Amino acid sequence: MSETSIINSTHIDRLAELAVKTGLALRPGQDLMITAPLEALPLVRKITDYAYKSGAGVITPIFSDPEMVLSRYRNALDASFDKAANWLYDGMGVAFDNDTARLAIVGDDPMLLADEDPQKVGRVNKANSQALTPARERITRFDINWNIIAWPGLAWAKRMFPDLPEKEAQKKLSEAIFSASRVNINDPIGAWSKHNKNLRKRSDWLNQQNFASLHFSGPGTDLTVGLADDHEWMGGASLAKNGVICNPNIPSEEVFTTPHCLKVEGTVSSTKPLSHQGTLIDNICVKFESGSITEAHASKGEEVLLKVLDSDAGARRLGEVALVPHSSPISQSGLLFYNTLFDENAASHIALGQCYSKCFKDGENLSKDQIISRGGNSSMIHIDWMIGSGEINVDGIKTDGTAVPVFRNGEWAG
Amino acid sequence: MSETSIINSTHIDRLAELAVKTGLALRPGQDLMITAPLEALPLVRKITDYAYKSGAGVITPIFSDPEMVLSRYRNALDASFDKAANWLYDGMGVAFDNDTARLAIVGDDPMLLADEDPQKVGRVNKANSQALTPARERITRFDINWNIIAWPGLAWAKRMFPDLPEKEAQKKLSEAIFSASRVNINDPIGAWSKHNKNLRKRSDWLNQQNFASLHFSGPGTDLTVGLADDHEWMGGASLAKNGVICNPNIPSEEVFTTPHCLKVEGTVSSTKPLSHQGTLIDNICVKFESGSITEAHASKGEEVLLKVLDSDAGARRLGEVALVPHSSPISQSGLLFYNTLFDENAASHIALGQCYSKCFKDGENLSKDQIISRGGNSSMIHIDWMIGSGEINVDGIKTDGTAVPVFRNGEWAG
Repeated sequence: MSETSIINSTHIDRLAELAVKTGLALRPGQDLMITAPLEALPLVRKITDYAYKSGAGVITPIFSDPEMVLSRYRNALDASFDKAANWLYDGMGVAFDNDTARLAIVGDDPMLLADEDPQKVGRVNKANSQALTPARERITRFDINWNIIAWPGLAWAKRMFPDLPEKEAQKKLSEAIFSASRVNINDPIGAWSKHNKNLRKRSDWLNQQNFASLHFSGPGTDLTVGLADDHEWMGGASLAKNGVICNPNIPSEEVFTTPHCLKVEGTVSSTKPLSHQGTLIDNICVKFESGSITEAHASKGEEVLLKVLDSDAGARRLGEVALVPHSSPISQSGLLFYNTLFDENAASHIALGQCYSKCFKDGENLSKDQIISRGGNSSMIHIDWMIGSGEINVDGIKTDGTAVPVFRNGEWAG
Repeated sequence: MSETSIINSTHIDRLAELAVKTGLALRPGQDLMITAPLEALPLVRKITDYAYKSGAGVITPIFSDPEMVLSRYRNALDASFDKAANWLYDGMGVAFDNDTARLAIVGDDPMLLADEDPQKVGRVNKANSQALTPARERITRFDINWNIIAWPGLAWAKRMFPDLPEKEAQKKLSEAIFSASRVNINDPIGAWSKHNKNLRKRSDWLNQQNFASLHFSGPGTDLTVGLADDHEWMGGASLAKNGVICNPNIPSEEVFTTPHCLKVEGTVSSTKPLSHQGTLIDNICVKFESGSITEAHASKGEEVLLKVLDSDAGARRLGEVALVPHSSPISQSGLLFYNTLFDENAASHIALGQCYSKCFKDGENLSKDQIISRGGNSSMIHIDWMIGSGEINVDGIKTDGTAVPVFRNGEWAG
């Protein structure tokens, strides 16, 4: 592979080991499903070695090819765009029911579909989201241990560093990924253990405060996010229902919980562009009333945004609110990755759509109805977008109305 | 892709078009599943273009990586070797039930597993065969249109031409594949139409004769293969139950039918080595009594052969008998491909295991029990091996005992 000569092979190896041992914390005997772009093959192979050495049963890779994705938009007849590979996604749901762990590698060009017909892009996204529902539910419920990591794909690198020669761009993206993932140091597994403890300290404090709502204020933002009844703050390592403590996102700098989907009021402006399945959506500004978005604008990608909001009944409501200090390493890198895995860790954010049942007290034992009665949102989408910056203050509002400073100028107040 | 500079891109393009239009005869609106080695990407992409242009719904590629296969043998714990990705294979069965067409591309190193522990290879093969049962049944029943073609993989080429520089070896294999697949000429689709007519003429004659059995004689072979009641000879194009006339194998030079699995008697010797899932099995000699193999030997790979015969109750009985003249283009190339798709078209052959219900009169409407009562065999394996050569005679034996010459010295007698 030509990539491996550009991309530090020691760091690839460490990321593979970290993904298996800390990200997935793969348990001997577990099967493993890996989704990855073809380009990520050197990383997939290393992960395979570590996973089999850790006792994996059978490892199944599902590779995707951006050229085949584009071929559909350029060649397929109209009826194609409402179809999805239901059999494959249903199968993934079955795999998770049988304790298969899930590793996702991101790395494709975030603007792959930028020049394609937004109507068709929207239809394909909707068909895929619907088909993915059984698998997605099992992931958001944390039925099994899962992990997402990144590979420095060449087209992605060229989007981020358009002025550099392409190999240099790829090298630069690889360094940014490895640094954010803490594998450019000698003991990534130890570093993640320490990092998890820090995130735990923050979420423990927030759980102790038991705020009724958070109030975000700053330029273009005056937003009150009611928190769900019995909400619980999470961050870093997470106990899946199968008993495995995994790190779902590498990198991760956030602590997050479930908003009350009927109790969000006010206006909020995005602070970074959102790259959604191939389209860049920039300068989002939306108004919430009784938890639902009643007005939505974007300076770019507004059509795709409006389509997203129409995905289903829960797509206009919040499923997640997350706090990330402006001083987070990813924020300080000054890079826009056009990828949620990274960009959501550069700023506090909210997510439209499906909530995590994990973010409730005793969440693993709550039924769907119980989650809804506590204010948890249900949707076939889950889309994070960034609302934090160095100019944003956050107050926690207690049930008696007392305001407690949580963030000042984008940093933890305490 | 570096391969495309070595491999004639016009021929890749023609093979892709032939696979979609003649091999699959893809019907507008059909989904398509493609299994392929990663190396075959240039061909997969071309097939994707042609398939979407032909009205494919959604195309799902399942790529396999030989390095990941080897990693399992070298790193996995013992319990891994009895596991398979059941969820994926079950999903394929569901896909076929929903009219998804099936394209398989072969191209991996046929001796990939030659140096691995045969016990483990056998266990993995068995686990995969069992997991594949629902999907395989739908394919052998011709529920849907399917097609197998080949990609000139580099490791495969090096096995076939060990004395050539590797790029030359790959070029030579590509030429052999394109020639056998009839895409090295201007009108492959027209050539296949003519070829199908020739194969139809042979199978029509055999159906008219309605032989009770075939008698193979030659060096090391004195074998009577009883034919199943209501057997039907097939060759080339085939009508699937979904109404599509596909060409399952490209290349294909055979006419074939279903033996009576209880009525095979005598001894038979292989005339070419069999490459079975990574192991070369050579100089097979077996004895049949009442349809079942009672003695089996091989000069090489005997352990794997014996494991194959123990796969299940039907693995010692025949599911197919096929006639191929010694003058077939693949035979005349003088090449041993170590791959059934090619080598079975160089010589008359028999197959252990599952029969094709298509090879019965009104086969698509027969139940499993009806097929068994007519002498059709049932198994989770289907393994072809070559018993034809320029020294083999075949007689057709009528119900009254009359012998009709079918092959003399490896060629059609009439």
